[in-house]
Amino acid sequence: MIRTVVESRSKSVTIGFEEPFCVIGERINPTGRKVLAGQLEAGDFSTVEKDAVEQVACGAMILDVNAGVVYNSNPDPNETEPPLMTKMIELVQGLVDVPLCIDSSVPGALEAGLDVAYGRPLLNSVTGEEERLEAILPLVKKHNVPVVAISNDDTGISEDPDVRFQVARKIVERAADFGIPRQDIVVDPLVMPVGAMATAGRQVFSLVRKLREELGVNTTCGASNISFGLPHRHGINAAFLPMAIAAGMTSAIMNPVRPLEMEAIHAANFLMNHDANGGKWIRFARVMDAVNDGQTFPAASQAASTGGRAGRRRRKTGGRS
Amino acid sequence: MIRTVVESRSKSVTIGFEEPFCVIGERINPTGRKVLAGQLEAGDFSTVEKDAVEQVACGAMILDVNAGVVYNSNPDPNETEPPLMTKMIELVQGLVDVPLCIDSSVPGALEAGLDVAYGRPLLNSVTGEEERLEAILPLVKKHNVPVVAISNDDTGISEDPDVRFQVARKIVERAADFGIPRQDIVVDPLVMPVGAMATAGRQVFSLVRKLREELGVNTTCGASNISFGLPHRHGINAAFLPMAIAAGMTSAIMNPVRPLEMEAIHAANFLMNHDANGGKWIRFARVMDAVNDGQTFPAASQAASTGGRAGRRRRKTGGRS
Repeated sequence: MIRTVVESRSKSVTIGFEEPFCVIGERINPTGRKVLAGQLEAGDFSTVEKDAVEQVACGAMILDVNAGVVYNSNPDPNETEPPLMTKMIELVQGLVDVPLCIDSSVPGALEAGLDVAYGRPLLNSVTGEEERLEAILPLVKKHNVPVVAISNDDTGISEDPDVRFQVARKIVERAADFGIPRQDIVVDPLVMPVGAMATAGRQVFSLVRKLREELGVNTTCGASNISFGLPHRHGINAAFLPMAIAAGMTSAIMNPVRPLEMEAIHAANFLMNHDANGGKWIRFARVMDAVNDGQTFPAASQAASTGGRAGRRRRKTGGRS
Repeated sequence: MIRTVVESRSKSVTIGFEEPFCVIGERINPTGRKVLAGQLEAGDFSTVEKDAVEQVACGAMILDVNAGVVYNSNPDPNETEPPLMTKMIELVQGLVDVPLCIDSSVPGALEAGLDVAYGRPLLNSVTGEEERLEAILPLVKKHNVPVVAISNDDTGISEDPDVRFQVARKIVERAADFGIPRQDIVVDPLVMPVGAMATAGRQVFSLVRKLREELGVNTTCGASNISFGLPHRHGINAAFLPMAIAAGMTSAIMNPVRPLEMEAIHAANFLMNHDANGGKWIRFARVMDAVNDGQTFPAASQAASTGGRAGRRRRKTGGRS
């Protein structure tokens, strides 16, 4: 049984075939978020703080942290990303106690993140590109952390799922050469937009099944890419996630602040027998009741978690009842 | 390639592995609907008329018609159901031109329905019970119609999916003895409530896959049974349907007037590459926009279909543009 263990200071999250689906919050990432990028260059971390707290309240089990800003004042990310990654990780760890996913294309930023992250973070990412394999796998081995393996290589992203499977196999084999076990490789089979490639969904479902059955690895993906450019894209995402889970996908990097997608994941966990007695579903249904009454999903989620703790405290200190 | 063809007076619907998921509208059924049952005994068919039109507008491709009322004035359904079935089918066929699913546990009502239904209706149902096999399969053969095969037998409903698979196999083999091809058998593997049986979801997904790969048959189910007794059950249904579709389920008897479930099915069709260029999804997204603006789903669906026709007429009669 393949189990990928990711840890924060005091908490452990297991990605695995017999575990609830692992939601990796994608929000702390300035890519495509101009306001956040500007804030980060100006030293304003208020959005990062809000995103950290909200995502965890809404159900993120791991938080992705990406410091990929191209500063107006200094266009070299090799200089700017490492110190920003350090700062962001220290900040997020001070606010929430969940494992982190250190996300960068700059090896120096990954190293900077590994130096300050508590516990056992997930490294994001290695690819099948030679230069990348040689730069990242030694870091993975040295720090004994799991890593996201994206199935593209020096020839780019293949539209042929068999080629993407072979790239994943190559990464697993190269990792083994470094003494890295396959349970520490989480393969991203690459999700294409279904609006641009009609077979995108079926490709992922069959690839995930094959990666699980033949290669024995956990999987992840950038889930919202499936609906890129389409109207009502959250409806597409909310069907894609249960279908990917049924095929064997064990995690996704996604926006946990979206109620429709999180409802789909809670329901899929229940249907995969990963929510004993439906306790989590019933708790989540109360949050959805509050959302239907007009609360925002983050506010309702935060109120539910606070209310839950308050409830337990009251019972513990209660008198005769 | 297994294709189950169902027909109305002028329309044909194919249930198949490479077809969009077939939605069979369940609403025209007095079971558990006291108001409707009372209306039917009193000769009031206004709810049947409304249910027929609304379900088709919302996306039902086949309509189930069940006349299972136990009259206060006459408790013998063998006497009351056949004429009521005749009346209901004639009424529904006068309103909408979609294939029907004739649904009864009373063989006489099935025969009455077969006598008046246009085209090639779906018969619902045969089971693995000996008496039922002997009563229904000759009807299926005589009228050359497809039939729903429910995987229980004289020992009841087994909790063991392997037993349910064997019951399905037995029905397919017995049908073959009557000269009925397997493409005319649509197996219902029986969906248990996940709140009562934690493995209910996984059972269905693996059974559907096995029925498809090993027995080569189309499948259906009473989809909403999965969420029986649970809060926010439409959220469970809306994850269950895409997961079942990903496993190979090709139809369901369900309530098409629920937008969350229909959104899930439209998205799943797109993700299974059964919605070329996403044209149906984009049209459905406009309906959901109207629902989000406060319209009911049936009203928005009806407006969209009327609007579409009006739009085409305008273009045809337009002047210089």
